[in-house]
Amino acid sequence: MTWPLAISMGDPAGIGPEIIAKAWAARHDAQLPPFIAVGDARAIERVWNGPTARVSDIGAAVSVFDQALPILSVDDAGEITPGQPDVEGARCALHALELAVGLVRSDAASALVTGPVSKAQLYDIGFTHPGQTEFVAERCGVAGANAVMMLAGPSLRVVPITTHVPLAAVSGLLSVELIVAKGRATARGLCRNFGITTPRLAFAGLNPHAGESGAIGREEIELIEPAIAQLRAEGIDATGPFAADTLFHPRARTAYDAVLCCYHDQALIPIKTLHFDEGVNITLGLPIVRTSPDHGTAFGIAGQDQAHPGAMIAAIAMAGDAARRRAALAN
Amino acid sequence: MTWPLAISMGDPAGIGPEIIAKAWAARHDAQLPPFIAVGDARAIERVWNGPTARVSDIGAAVSVFDQALPILSVDDAGEITPGQPDVEGARCALHALELAVGLVRSDAASALVTGPVSKAQLYDIGFTHPGQTEFVAERCGVAGANAVMMLAGPSLRVVPITTHVPLAAVSGLLSVELIVAKGRATARGLCRNFGITTPRLAFAGLNPHAGESGAIGREEIELIEPAIAQLRAEGIDATGPFAADTLFHPRARTAYDAVLCCYHDQALIPIKTLHFDEGVNITLGLPIVRTSPDHGTAFGIAGQDQAHPGAMIAAIAMAGDAARRRAALAN
Repeated sequence: MTWPLAISMGDPAGIGPEIIAKAWAARHDAQLPPFIAVGDARAIERVWNGPTARVSDIGAAVSVFDQALPILSVDDAGEITPGQPDVEGARCALHALELAVGLVRSDAASALVTGPVSKAQLYDIGFTHPGQTEFVAERCGVAGANAVMMLAGPSLRVVPITTHVPLAAVSGLLSVELIVAKGRATARGLCRNFGITTPRLAFAGLNPHAGESGAIGREEIELIEPAIAQLRAEGIDATGPFAADTLFHPRARTAYDAVLCCYHDQALIPIKTLHFDEGVNITLGLPIVRTSPDHGTAFGIAGQDQAHPGAMIAAIAMAGDAARRRAALAN
Repeated sequence: MTWPLAISMGDPAGIGPEIIAKAWAARHDAQLPPFIAVGDARAIERVWNGPTARVSDIGAAVSVFDQALPILSVDDAGEITPGQPDVEGARCALHALELAVGLVRSDAASALVTGPVSKAQLYDIGFTHPGQTEFVAERCGVAGANAVMMLAGPSLRVVPITTHVPLAAVSGLLSVELIVAKGRATARGLCRNFGITTPRLAFAGLNPHAGESGAIGREEIELIEPAIAQLRAEGIDATGPFAADTLFHPRARTAYDAVLCCYHDQALIPIKTLHFDEGVNITLGLPIVRTSPDHGTAFGIAGQDQAHPGAMIAAIAMAGDAARRRAALAN
């Protein structure tokens, strides 16, 4: 018996419903595993004319998947107008996320893929987590700090060691402990989710030219080098710190399995430059597999049949592969 | 009469001599303008078997260019061993740079291309400038702060507003005045050197997601937005600040002629990710045209016939194009 993936629809007024439907339409070409959409079925039916099947039994999703997009419907989004988010939509998105997490936590679904939500709308309804990642981590009983965000595309994987903080705060937030923790979680996550048994981790320096031996900043010497030494002592293949601008060209990318970056844009600039329409956000360090397309709700183009499903398709494929690998490791 | 470009050889123990020779060998395929190498001729002859011609009269360089690589030789590099830099080599590199600048300043050569030097060796002989750019600026009577470094590749041009400073210092160094000055120099430089009459400048935010309306840092609101407003009031097509990670994918790159970035790696990561072997450093704000390949001396592969001449070829082509445009503007 194959268990389907559970995909939370995200904000019903965003492009989530459209890209889930387009991913279903591409299921054969992209060889996608069966999945079930969780959210208000009307959000999909409003922007897409293909076949849908409302199912209440998750097991039924697999049997109908070839003929129709299975939806576990949460009919509480109120009036849905693509491009016009509101609080009912945010409540529905959160409800769908909670339900989808529960399906995966209870082994009714094999992996979680999350559609894009609007943080501003979620904050309006009292959501207190920085994002979906931390919410999912909490529901899985994992401290938010131990849930590691990796962005992955066909030729590059990056992990930002710090994320949504002002650039001026980054240096003060870096510590040997933090860098080591992210390195460990990344090595373990590459093994469990990607089947890389001895992952090669490259670390980017914080400063231009990785500090030029201390001439342009000392974080490399005081924080990153000791962290790399500690990881190596634990048997992890960690190298660097390298000048960040020399790490991402085609030849350089052959030398590692993932780059640990010091801050958000150091990681996100190269991945989005190379893989804007196919970048996947995968959360490492959780007991479940969770991926999401690496883009937002794109309210500006919602409901106009313009949304590119590439990242959603890649997120579904990656979640399916990771779930298969984890199941094989468990057996 | 065509005036040749003057190319300073850079450190004689680095890959500069080899890539100049390889660029000469590619002169027909790459449709390069005539140029003369300035430096110790032995450095080229040691790593390359092609024809060279030592000339003392710059005019003679053009007439011999089709048959041999013309060299204005500075025979003072001492013993030259590729990969082994020393102080005699650094003195020779500086002598060659000074001579090449003088040729362009006196209109005997049409543009300057500089080969890679070793800063560590130059500092050992008392060189006090941060790099060749500031040296050239001083020799041209331009304050170093007004000489603007642009990195240019076939599909992207970037200008770092701050350069070789620790990342933690960047926020404190940004000011409305600095951003406006760099914006003005970039707009003027795109017009004079690239023939873009109404350049479109995009500005990257400093913080993740360009600060999310102040939620993740306030430099966008307090510094970058006012600077953009001032540039627009002056008639310059300046837009932003944009989230840096969304600025560099193929569709995004069609919307501007250059991106002004807040710091070194924000500019250098995308350009080197996309154009590692063909990135050109062009100095804007000088009375002369000056370009250089966007890489270093690569001592590790010097003398092994492994150096890729792509960036040197691109630097020569760009310098030739810019010199032609400036000459046309002057007439």
